[in-house]
Amino acid sequence: MTKQYINQYTLLQQQLNYHFKQTDFLIQALTHRSVGAQNNERLEFLGDALLSHVVAEILYQKYPHAKEGQLTRLRACLVKGETLADIARQLDLGQYVQLGAGELKSGGWRRDSILADGVEALIGAVYLDAGMEACQQLIQHLWWQRIDELSHEDAFKDAKTQLQEKLQAEGKNLPVYDIILTTGQAHEQEFHVRCQIEGMAETIEAKDNSRRKAEQKAAAKMLKLLTI
Amino acid sequence: MTKQYINQYTLLQQQLNYHFKQTDFLIQALTHRSVGAQNNERLEFLGDALLSHVVAEILYQKYPHAKEGQLTRLRACLVKGETLADIARQLDLGQYVQLGAGELKSGGWRRDSILADGVEALIGAVYLDAGMEACQQLIQHLWWQRIDELSHEDAFKDAKTQLQEKLQAEGKNLPVYDIILTTGQAHEQEFHVRCQIEGMAETIEAKDNSRRKAEQKAAAKMLKLLTI
Repeated sequence: MTKQYINQYTLLQQQLNYHFKQTDFLIQALTHRSVGAQNNERLEFLGDALLSHVVAEILYQKYPHAKEGQLTRLRACLVKGETLADIARQLDLGQYVQLGAGELKSGGWRRDSILADGVEALIGAVYLDAGMEACQQLIQHLWWQRIDELSHEDAFKDAKTQLQEKLQAEGKNLPVYDIILTTGQAHEQEFHVRCQIEGMAETIEAKDNSRRKAEQKAAAKMLKLLTI
Repeated sequence: MTKQYINQYTLLQQQLNYHFKQTDFLIQALTHRSVGAQNNERLEFLGDALLSHVVAEILYQKYPHAKEGQLTRLRACLVKGETLADIARQLDLGQYVQLGAGELKSGGWRRDSILADGVEALIGAVYLDAGMEACQQLIQHLWWQRIDELSHEDAFKDAKTQLQEKLQAEGKNLPVYDIILTTGQAHEQEFHVRCQIEGMAETIEAKDNSRRKAEQKAAAKMLKLLTI
């Protein structure tokens, strides 16, 4: 490790509020797969899992009365690629990430995902460098404002409302829910519901013991399908 | 907490190789949402995240040369509902889970997911009762044999191979991949590929700078869609 490296990454480490003991981890976290075999993909895998866990725990403690579905939505909002890319831009990560020649030429279309992956890789790198507590501190440091400003309103909306708003925002037709089958005796009935969106080839089916619940399930699945 | 509870859960705790300090956590982990507001859904949310992290870390260390995609597939195999339900059956968890009257009457169709959720909730409960190390030990204890027996062959198959084998096993038609568009100048081309399966309404599209990669991406997305 040369002095140049130390200087080069000083500002970034200040922004992270973390100084690496083993700079190799930092360098690996900032190396895109287009550079070669020693890249940040494995660190990204680890960091993604750590981030999910740490954010889940923060939300679990912060919202003692939130239901599982609400916690899941809050977390999804905090760990989605868009949020990660925003954090990367705050860190000015783009100037630190090493790209191979091919990737440099291909322009910007993968830029956001490269930045998002870099943040996850940094989380994995800090964990390997110093363990769980340092990793938790890093995530708290980078996320505290977003966690503070979480909109209850957004997160606590049910799946049907979310799906409707998403489609409206994209100028698309609203979903239609139909009961396609009911099975079982009275009081133990199951409702099979189909959700479809005009102009979309995919339809989604779900079942539950109330029509309302089956529709919510179908809407949740449709939301997942739309974000694959 | 009565003596009866202690006796009732002795065998389960022996199987878990973990004895709860606060039995309330154990009881909550075993209480399905059909019973009432004090149920295991929040613990399941927490346990799911912990399991993903711990398994990711075990795989990261165990396979120092595996790529990110391979690690992701290995983990998916270890944490899928089917695996969790198998572990629950080994623990005889069915006899401990408390269900509401409605759920008891509705028969067995949700049985596997109730069991799987119970295992995740137990992981969350152990974490809250005793912290990360106890949680890691629990997961090691319950998963070591499955991790030991992981089939490299299965996990290291690419997405197209996996999709083909899944469809063959289900007696379905094989997927067809078509290039629907190429964009960009020579040497910087992007291939847009569509994957479709006869008899399925859904089609999947993906793009990359080689046809092979675009097909792999489309196959991976289709695999996700088929398991929603």
